[in-house]
This record gives sequence, C-alpha cells and structure tokens, in this order.
Amino acid sequence: MRSFSSALSFPLLLRRRLLATAAHFHKPASKMANVSDNSLRESLAEKISTIQTQGNVVRQLKASGAAKPEIETAVQALNALKLERSSIEAQIQAASGDSSASRDAFRQAVVNTLERRLFYIPSFKIYRGVAGLYDYGPPGCAVKSNVLAFWRQHFVLEENMLEVDCPCVTPEVVLKASGHVDKFTDLMVKDEKTGTCYRADHLLKDYCKEKLEKDLSMTAEKAADLKHVLAMLDDLTAEQLGAKIKEYGITAPDTKNPLSDPYPFNLMFQTSIGPSGISPGYMRPETAQGIFVNFKDLYYYNGNKLPFAAAQIGQAFRNEVIAPRQGLLRVREFTLAEIEHFVDPQDKSHPKFSEVANLEFLMFPRELQMSGQSARKLQIGEAVFKGIVNNETLGYFIGRVYLFLTELGIDKQRLRFRQHLANEMAHYAADCWDAEIESSYGWIECVGIADRSAYDLRAHSDKSGVSLVAQEKYSEPREVEKLNVAPVKKELGLAFKGNQKIVVEALEALDEKEAMEMKAALELKGEVEFLVCNLGKTVTIKKSMVSISKEKKKEHQRVFTPSVIEPSFGIGRIIYCLYEHSFYTRPSKTSDEQLNVFRFPPRVAPIKCTVFPLVQNEQYENVAKLISKSLTVAGVSHKIDITGTSIGKRYARTDELGVPFAITVDKTTSVTIRDRDSKNQVRVDVEKVASVVKEVTDGLKTWADILNEYEIHTSESADD
Amino acid sequence: MRSFSSALSFPLLLRRRLLATAAHFHKPASKMANVSDNSLRESLAEKISTIQTQGNVVRQLKASGAAKPEIETAVQALNALKLERSSIEAQIQAASGDSSASRDAFRQAVVNTLERRLFYIPSFKIYRGVAGLYDYGPPGCAVKSNVLAFWRQHFVLEENMLEVDCPCVTPEVVLKASGHVDKFTDLMVKDEKTGTCYRADHLLKDYCKEKLEKDLSMTAEKAADLKHVLAMLDDLTAEQLGAKIKEYGITAPDTKNPLSDPYPFNLMFQTSIGPSGISPGYMRPETAQGIFVNFKDLYYYNGNKLPFAAAQIGQAFRNEVIAPRQGLLRVREFTLAEIEHFVDPQDKSHPKFSEVANLEFLMFPRELQMSGQSARKLQIGEAVFKGIVNNETLGYFIGRVYLFLTELGIDKQRLRFRQHLANEMAHYAADCWDAEIESSYGWIECVGIADRSAYDLRAHSDKSGVSLVAQEKYSEPREVEKLNVAPVKKELGLAFKGNQKIVVEALEALDEKEAMEMKAALELKGEVEFLVCNLGKTVTIKKSMVSISKEKKKEHQRVFTPSVIEPSFGIGRIIYCLYEHSFYTRPSKTSDEQLNVFRFPPRVAPIKCTVFPLVQNEQYENVAKLISKSLTVAGVSHKIDITGTSIGKRYARTDELGVPFAITVDKTTSVTIRDRDSKNQVRVDVEKVASVVKEVTDGLKTWADILNEYEIHTSESADD
Repeated sequence: MRSFSSALSFPLLLRRRLLATAAHFHKPASKMANVSDNSLRESLAEKISTIQTQGNVVRQLKASGAAKPEIETAVQALNALKLERSSIEAQIQAASGDSSASRDAFRQAVVNTLERRLFYIPSFKIYRGVAGLYDYGPPGCAVKSNVLAFWRQHFVLEENMLEVDCPCVTPEVVLKASGHVDKFTDLMVKDEKTGTCYRADHLLKDYCKEKLEKDLSMTAEKAADLKHVLAMLDDLTAEQLGAKIKEYGITAPDTKNPLSDPYPFNLMFQTSIGPSGISPGYMRPETAQGIFVNFKDLYYYNGNKLPFAAAQIGQAFRNEVIAPRQGLLRVREFTLAEIEHFVDPQDKSHPKFSEVANLEFLMFPRELQMSGQSARKLQIGEAVFKGIVNNETLGYFIGRVYLFLTELGIDKQRLRFRQHLANEMAHYAADCWDAEIESSYGWIECVGIADRSAYDLRAHSDKSGVSLVAQEKYSEPREVEKLNVAPVKKELGLAFKGNQKIVVEALEALDEKEAMEMKAALELKGEVEFLVCNLGKTVTIKKSMVSISKEKKKEHQRVFTPSVIEPSFGIGRIIYCLYEHSFYTRPSKTSDEQLNVFRFPPRVAPIKCTVFPLVQNEQYENVAKLISKSLTVAGVSHKIDITGTSIGKRYARTDELGVPFAITVDKTTSVTIRDRDSKNQVRVDVEKVASVVKEVTDGLKTWADILNEYEIHTSESADD
Repeated sequence: MRSFSSALSFPLLLRRRLLATAAHFHKPASKMANVSDNSLRESLAEKISTIQTQGNVVRQLKASGAAKPEIETAVQALNALKLERSSIEAQIQAASGDSSASRDAFRQAVVNTLERRLFYIPSFKIYRGVAGLYDYGPPGCAVKSNVLAFWRQHFVLEENMLEVDCPCVTPEVVLKASGHVDKFTDLMVKDEKTGTCYRADHLLKDYCKEKLEKDLSMTAEKAADLKHVLAMLDDLTAEQLGAKIKEYGITAPDTKNPLSDPYPFNLMFQTSIGPSGISPGYMRPETAQGIFVNFKDLYYYNGNKLPFAAAQIGQAFRNEVIAPRQGLLRVREFTLAEIEHFVDPQDKSHPKFSEVANLEFLMFPRELQMSGQSARKLQIGEAVFKGIVNNETLGYFIGRVYLFLTELGIDKQRLRFRQHLANEMAHYAADCWDAEIESSYGWIECVGIADRSAYDLRAHSDKSGVSLVAQEKYSEPREVEKLNVAPVKKELGLAFKGNQKIVVEALEALDEKEAMEMKAALELKGEVEFLVCNLGKTVTIKKSMVSISKEKKKEHQRVFTPSVIEPSFGIGRIIYCLYEHSFYTRPSKTSDEQLNVFRFPPRVAPIKCTVFPLVQNEQYENVAKLISKSLTVAGVSHKIDITGTSIGKRYARTDELGVPFAITVDKTTSVTIRDRDSKNQVRVDVEKVASVVKEVTDGLKTWADILNEYEIHTSESADD
C-alpha cells in the first residue's frame, strides 16, 4: 500500500497510479484486444515506446547534471507525448463501447444493498457523519473477521510467520526515519474566507479539463497551453501550481472566494504524546514500520536465521482530502495486513516455490504495458524463470496472493498482477507487482508486492544508531583480501601543511579500483596527480606519502542488511471488490422485483446458515431452537427466523446477506438444507444437521458431496 | 472500563478505585480473614459504617443546598474518618505478614520471561521507546488473538450479538455528547523550565507521605495538617491544589524547578480531521460510543425487537501520565472488547439466566465491603433472587464473565466480583460490578459490568436530535388517562400582561399530582396561589384561567429509551493477569536452575505443539516435516525444532512459551506426544498425530481421554 519514490512523495504516486489505471484499463483485459481497434493499439504501442525513449533522455539529462532549461524542454516533450497517449487511450475506450452508465447502475445496486443490510454504515451518521469514515455493521464486521481469519491461516500459519501487534500511536522520530514526516504530503490551497481546503493539482486539472471540453471558442494557442499544463501537472512545484491558479483566476469551487497559495499538507493525523505537548506523534499511516523497528528482536526470536517473515494486521490512518463519490475506496482509517519477509539479498530463492510454480493467471508485465498490449495468462514459474519477475520469493508471494484472493471469491478473470513501470518504482526497489482487481471503479490496486531491498532497515539503522543486520556464519573461515590505504601523515604534513587532513581523508576514501591504479602509477612514476574535491584542486602525491597494499584476512561470517519483500493488503478494498464480484440478481417468482444475492463462499459468508420453521407452530419452533443450540456448540454462526413471513421471502432475506445454507424445519425428525446458489435441497436428520453444515462451511466437504450423501428433497420450490 | 460519576471526572474515579483496591485488598480473600487480626477487622467494620453514615450526611447537606462552610466541615470529618480507615487497613496488612518483596520477585520472574520470549516488547525500543506503549511480540500476539477468538465464540456467537467495527478517529461532537471532552481530565502541573508534566495530586500526595514518614521532628500540628491534606486530596479543586503546592514549596521532582499552577489536561489524544484544521477530533477513549450512535440502525437490523446486544472489539486510547513501574497495567493504547446489551427497563429478565444460576463464585457485595468483611462465595442465582445483584440480565452477564475468565485459565480463587459502593457509581447507574483479578499488583479491575440505564442513548439523542428509542407494540390498544392542562391565554394575558408566557409555561410544566391538586383547589375555592419560579414570586390563578382535565386515550404502543447493560473487557489486563496465574517454575534435573512454565490451556496457548526429531538425522527430519505439514492443513499452529540441542532443553524452551504438547520423532512410523504439565507421554501413529493434537487443542477431547486411548510411553524421562 506504500510506494516510495526517489523523486515523488509516495501517496501522490499511489493515487496517481490508481487513477491512471482506472482510466486506462477499466475493462476486462479479454475485451480489450478486439480487432476493431487494432490500428489504434498499434499507434498506442508506438507512442509508449517513444515515451520510454524520451523518459530515458530526461533521466540521463538529470543524472549528468544538465542545465535546467535543457531538462525542462525534455520534460515538456515527454509530457506532450504522454498527453497524446492519453488521447489514443480515450479513443480505444470509446471504440470499445463499454457503458459507464451500466457500471454506475451496477455499483449503485451493490452499494444500496450493502448499506441497507448494514454491511457498511457511514460512521457517526446521527451527527451527519464524517467523510471517509465507515463502520462495519454486523454482516460487514463478520465478513471482515472471516477474511482476516483466512489471511492468518493462509499466510501466518502456513509460513510460520511471526505476527506482531504494535500501537497506532507512533512517535515522530520513527516516521521521520521512514520518510513520512517529510514526504507524505499533498499540495493544498485554502478558501481564504471559509478555510475549506482543496488539492491544488485537482483544482487546476478540473479547470483545464472543463475549459477544454466546454469553451469551444478558445484559441488554438490557449488550448495548447491548457493541454501543456495538464501534461505537466504531476511535475509542478508549489510555486508553479500557485502561479497557474493565479493566472487562470481559479477560485474556490463552492464559494468562488479567492484561494491561498499552495502549501504542503502532511496526510498523517498528528497528535501529541503525553501531557507536556512537546512529544509530537502521529497515527501510523501503515503497519510496516512497527515490524522494521523490531527486526533485531524478531531475528533473535527466529534463532538468528534468515529467511523469516513477520506480519501485522491493524488500523492505519491517512487524513485524506475526500472528494465525493470515492465511496468505500478512499477512506481515512482502514485495516492493513502486511508481511515483511526478510531474506539474504544474495539468495532470494524460496523452498516452497515449486508449490506455486504451475499456477497460471493474468499478469501484466512492464513490457506488455509499454507495448500497449493487455494482461496475459502466464505461469508464475515461467515468469520467474524468464526473469519477468525478479526472484523466486517475490514470485512465491505473487502465487500465494493469487490463491488467497481467488479462494476468497475474487473472480480470476478480473484479477491481474501488474508490474510497476521503471518510473513508478522507488530507486531502491528491485521489483514491484500490484494485485489489481477490476471493479465498477476500474482496476483497483488491492495488494502491493514489492521487493524493497534493504531500504527500510537501513533507514532505521541510520536514524536510531542500532545496527539492524543479519550474519551468515561460514562453515569454515574464508580468506578475503582487504584493501589497506595508509597515508604517511608526516610526509603529507610537510607537503600540504593545513590541508593535510583533507588530503588524508581523500586518500582514505579511495575505492579499491582507484587505490590500485594509484599504487601502480606510484610504482611506475614515483608520483601521481590527485584531484582532491574538497580542496577543489589537484595535488601531487609522492610514493613516500602513502602506502597502499592488499592484506589477506580470515573472515568467519558475513554481515549484511537483509532485503525485505513486502506483500501489503488493503483489507477494505479487497472486501469491497469481493462484494462486487459476489453480487448478482435473480428474478422473483412472485413479483417483478429482482432479488439480490451475494454468492460468498461459506468461508467468507457473514452468517453460515439460517434456521426457519416452515410454519409458525410450537413444535417446529422447538426443533429450530434445538438446531440453533447445536450450531452454537459447533461454532457455526447462524440466525433463527421464526417470523410468519413466507418461506420465499425469508430465503430472499438471507440470500441478500449471502448466507450459503438455509435449514427449513418441516418435520420434527428431519429437516431440509437448501444451498443458496443452486437452490437444491437435501433432507437430513435433526441430530446430524449441525455437523453437516459445519463440514461444508469448514470446507471439509463440498455441496456436491452433500448432494451425493443425502436424500435430495424436491418440493415445489418455495423460492420466490 | 469507563466510569461516569455525577461529581467526579471518570478516569480519576477509575484510577482512584484501582489504587484503592490494590492497596486495601492485595491478598487472596481466603487469607484475609485469619483469626489474629479479628479485633482490627472489627474496628475496621465500625469505621466503615461510620464513614457510610457521615457520607450520607455530606450528601444530604449538598442536596439541601446547605452553606459552604457547613458542607466543608462535614467533608473534612468524612475524610478524617477515611484516613483512620486506611491506617487500620495498613495494620491488617502488616499483621498478615504477606511479603511484598516476594510478590515483586514473582512479578519480576514473570515479566523477565515475558520480555525475553517476546510476549511483549516495549514499543519503538530502538528509539528508546515511549512510556505506556507496548508491542505484542509473536507469542503475545497469538495469545491475544486466541483470547479474542474465544471472546467472540463465548459472547458474540453464543448470544447472536451484533458485532460492529467503528473507526478510532472520532469527531468532537460525539465525545462532547458522551461527556469525555469536558470531563475526561486530570489536573496537571508543569515544570516551568523544562515543560515536564506531573499529576498535581500525585506530587502533593508524595510530598505529604514522605514528610510524614521521614520528618520525625515535625510538630504534631504540622503532621495533622499533612494528614488532613492527604484525606482531602480527592476533593481539592485546582486552586486549592495549587495553593498547597505553593505553601509547601513543592518543586518538580526531577529538576527542583518551580511548578506552574494546576490546569486540567484532557486525557484523549487530540487530532484534527481533514486538512482545514477546523474539525477537531480525538482518538476514541473507549469503543462503546460507536455502538450507541448506531443504536437506531442496529435496532432496525434486529427486527425492531428488544432485547439485543451489540459488541465491538477495538483499540482505545488514553494519553495518560505514565509513572514508572506501572508496567503493563497502565498503557496509552489498549484493546477493549465491549458489549452493550439493550433491554426494556421494565423487563430486565434474561431467558437464559437459568443456565448460569447455579454458578457459585467469590462475590464482594457492597454490604460485605461496608462491614469490613471479605469476598464470599455466593450463587449468582441467589444473589439475584435476594436483590444483591440488581437484575437477571446483569446477573447473567456476571455468570458468563466468570465462565469466560476461568475457561481462559484465570484462577477461580483469585477472581472476585466486587460491587461498586453507592458513592462510586454514577447517579444514573442502576448497579455495577467489577470482575477483579488478583495479581502481584493487587486486585485489578479487568471487566466492568454496569447497568447504565438510559444515560448514553439519551445523551446522544439530546445532542444529535435523532430519537434513539424502542417501541413496544401492544397486542391490543390500551386505554390510558392522559393529563390535559390547557391555559386560557386570553384570561392570563389580561391578568399577567408581559409575564403571560412565563405563567403559561409554568402551568404546562405541572406534573400530574400538582395539576390534580390545583384542579381540586380551584374547584373548591375558585382560585389558588401558584409559585412561578421563573418569576420568583407567587401569582393568583383563577378558575377561568386554566382548564385541567384527564382524557382517556387509546395507545397502540409504548415508546421508551432502552436501558443498557454494559460488560466491558480490558483485554490487555486480562491477558497480563492470565500470565501471572499461568506461570510456575520447576527445578531442572540437570542443573540447579529453575525452569519457567506457562500452564496455558490449549485454547489460549500461542503455539499448540512443537515437533522435534529426537536426534539429528534426515529420516526423522523428514517425518517431522511431514507432521508439520499435516498440522498446517489441520490449522494447528506449531513450531518445528530441528536444532541439535538436547531434548530436555528443547522441552524447557517450549514450556516457557506455554506450548501444551510436544511431538518427539523417535521412530519413523510412530511418535510420542508429551503433555506439558504432567509430562506424560503417549505413542501415536504418524498419520494420526495431527488429528489427535487437533482434537485435544480444540477441546473435543481432554488429555485424560488421550491417555486412555493410546499407549502410554514410558522412557527415562528426557525432561531436564
């Protein structure tokens, strides 16, 4: 869920990436590659490749320290190319004729059902709520708790991970080290009269887009300017953004009041620890830091052995600017489940990789994205073998995430693993893949799986002064050659006087190659010219001034900072996508209504079964209560419904909660069990019914097994 | 976990109560009533009864609006009595000869083991930590997650509770309504130079105590003054506290710098929601408010029927001043599990009460506390029948909490239910009991079970303007008499001119009794004298000015605010006490060390079993791996230890983590299972071992069953 970048503040990046994918790839990959738009796709591929080339030009210019105007021109060219790409993409989109109206209608149906049945409740509703905060109502809370239980089983138990549970309140120093205090910001502007805040880039973008769409009398020059701004948006500084807002006379959208200059706003909820007010703290924006700061203890707990993984489930907080209609996908408090798998950077193999190697699913490697193609089915084993995925451990987790999501009920066809493009990744990251799930909002990043190398441990090591490293003990001591550069201070002092210290430091800082070259030159010529940067000039070093040699040493162990591979799960987003993928409607028999159903797998379903007496009568009610008791003892969550409503209506009510099984009491000795999706029924003895339901909800048996084992009950289906 | 009071800010109350019980009753009740201190106990009983009487005097004086000096004198007398009680208690304590040193040593042994094995880790340790914040390391996190899973099974599933999950970030208005913004405060003083903060009452208390103990040359007068201050401590205002601190010249304990005046400090972590900085928010200090604000939706979800219970598990935050050595019991962030059981105030019976009625355990009713006796075994059925416990629902939850705690592994002998004294309870509460667990810190309040009447729903109803009520539909409409007071405005206007409105309001505010008396008087005499408070005088009301009658009306339903019964669990405190109750040591066979053991029940144990090859050899290792795999499939958390350490040492390691079962691979076809506490072993086939362990850790079988079923393995015990 976190993305660092050398150049960009991470939340911006994350958000931009999300919006970009939603806009570009909002349809199933299978639909995208139709024949009609082949020529468009070809030009898209061409454009993307040009962008890649131009991107490299910009990077080289920056790296070589080129002049500012030169870089700027190159960046402008790059951004113009990106704009052209967007336009081609929009054409492809339009050509494919997918209806955004039907997507909206579908989403509305799902969200209405979710809110009506209290899967979600806008938090503090009686006080008119708070944007971006939601409660999980009873069925939502049960789904969440089932998803987390399965996560623990699938990851923590399976891999023997070390699960920890750290506080949300975090002192500033920790988030200073991680980079969040300085970089976790958005540029904001404020309505100067009301104080209402807006994202500066959003206002500018909205202005440009609206102008371009609606102001048809605009000069070509003006239009080009606006397009240029749109293309440059992500690269504008606070000053540049402010200047544009002034130039265009953009005002606060709600009041038309003037706006403040843009200023950075940190997205963390700030607070103060202790009563003195002098210890600033924040509510953690992610759970990962709690693991990193404990690395030393956890490594010890694991017997000082690598690899091992630690995991944490918990709340994270981001004080986002919430725009309307982002719904359940952009929230200010959410549950993360994060894994930090620590591994020797020289050996990223995984002992259990073979268990996932044959899995085949939609992958979207960098190359396919760059060439304008769509995601494609790949075997994860092949992807690792071919180097598409950087290493086995990363590949192993991609495979495990695939299994986790699909076993939860995510549609395989609407799940893809998208690799980050080179410019999306932080400079230190080795590779990064997002599990993206397609929803009515487009493709949503739900799990990030990144090889973050040694970045995080090094950052905390530097800040805290506590060394966070691992050792590999050699079975036998190894002989290694170590460079030894010994400046002869007396000679250097005579030659350089007050500058002696600077020259000594420069000599000591020589790397192996430089030192050995100097040694060779000194032996050949007796002296050598040597550039001392800190003096800003070249000095002459004589043979007598320094002794350079290689020494053999015995080493008993190798000390290194482990790499970390981080799968990070946005639990709320996964659950929301699961709701969309599980939802369908079927016609009612007795009315022209459409009935809503969630086809949750039993593992996920908030309630595993309902118990209904067929008619209101004391005998049947007593049987229902008896069954309810036996279900409680078996630990099966259920609901008993003894209202006099028709059996069809009662089925409809429970289908809408995604309850997989319904027990109807129509005799006192045996009862029927109905499967939600097939509507098939079997007849089972009263004493057996709890254990049958338990077996099938625990996944020990399938419904097909049950159909084989028990008498199939055929009534004129009571279903509505 | 929350205590409201009409007079006191709640956290103060909670804390004071905690300290008081820790000091007064730190030994098992069974030990307390020994013969040697009978006479002391008699004088204690006498003193407590006098305190009760004097307490009533104070309350009556306050209620009758007596003069300030008069009240003050009575309060002083009361506090002097309390001080005498403390002294008697101290004598009883000393007489009983319990050694606080041995308690400290025991605690140190437990805490050392807990920290060494990473049950706990001081949070952000590499940055020197933050007082009052702890991480749960791997075994602690597993214990917590097991305790919460059992809580869900025992409460949520068993009672079909509606579990919700609300955010921690809470807008100010919600906590304004609940009273936390105004009352959740401590009085603080600040070191004027360094800014370090202290609890004002703590500094004053420490000063007085130290003076009294160490300054033996003190005049009797001075000593009496200090004792008086100690007795008055809880009742001092900010001004009085400040004056005393000045008078005694108390300075900052660490620096001896001067101190600021006392000021109230709110214990909530404050933050700001959204970027504008104009929406203050807090991190919730408890989870209950999230349930109350959702009452309307939850009532609807439950089919508009009472009773029902909602539940929530989640983090709560209190920005406490942390004094050293409060360890794991006073923390700034903790997990609460709270239940709000909504019930008709006219019917607090509970359908399942009979299921707990025969349970017998230590109860400490108000009367026993007042008469200086100790807690005593009572049947909960009898306690409700006799009115010691206010109602069946409250009694039902007390019984269920007892079962929950003892099934977790809390020692029955060191668990008591203490009723709040009248002056500890909030004015609106009907009854309140704390489950207190005895630990090395004394008796610790771990669960509060309170009948809070309609207070919380009314508070949110008033503040939000949303009616939070329930309806009871009558099966047949009921005829009720309703009072109708109709002021005749014309006549009143003529008589009272500008005051007419005030008189009308006063007439409309008459209650039934007053109105009927007025009616009778008017009919008898034609006019009546009527005190209008808002006018500050009596006016004459004539018969023509008001018509008073009773009308018969048909009512179809009764509308009322439900009462709420709230069991609130401090999960961290329960777990800490569980650690102390589970810890024991046994001598090592091979050294003179004491080996540490946690006797966790399998349900709670962080890891259910370990798998050891008896000796390092590939065959055995493969069997161990096979068993590990089958345990994973069965969902049994386990650890595999293939180090070459002696089997005895490996047992000792796992005993210290409280692992109940150890599987030793000493053949390739069958293996032994060892029970941690008895050290008995059985021999089981390799294919069966996972299912055997699962049955016994799931509680389907006991270890005794296993001993009966399988071959007992007798070796020269390898145990250390």
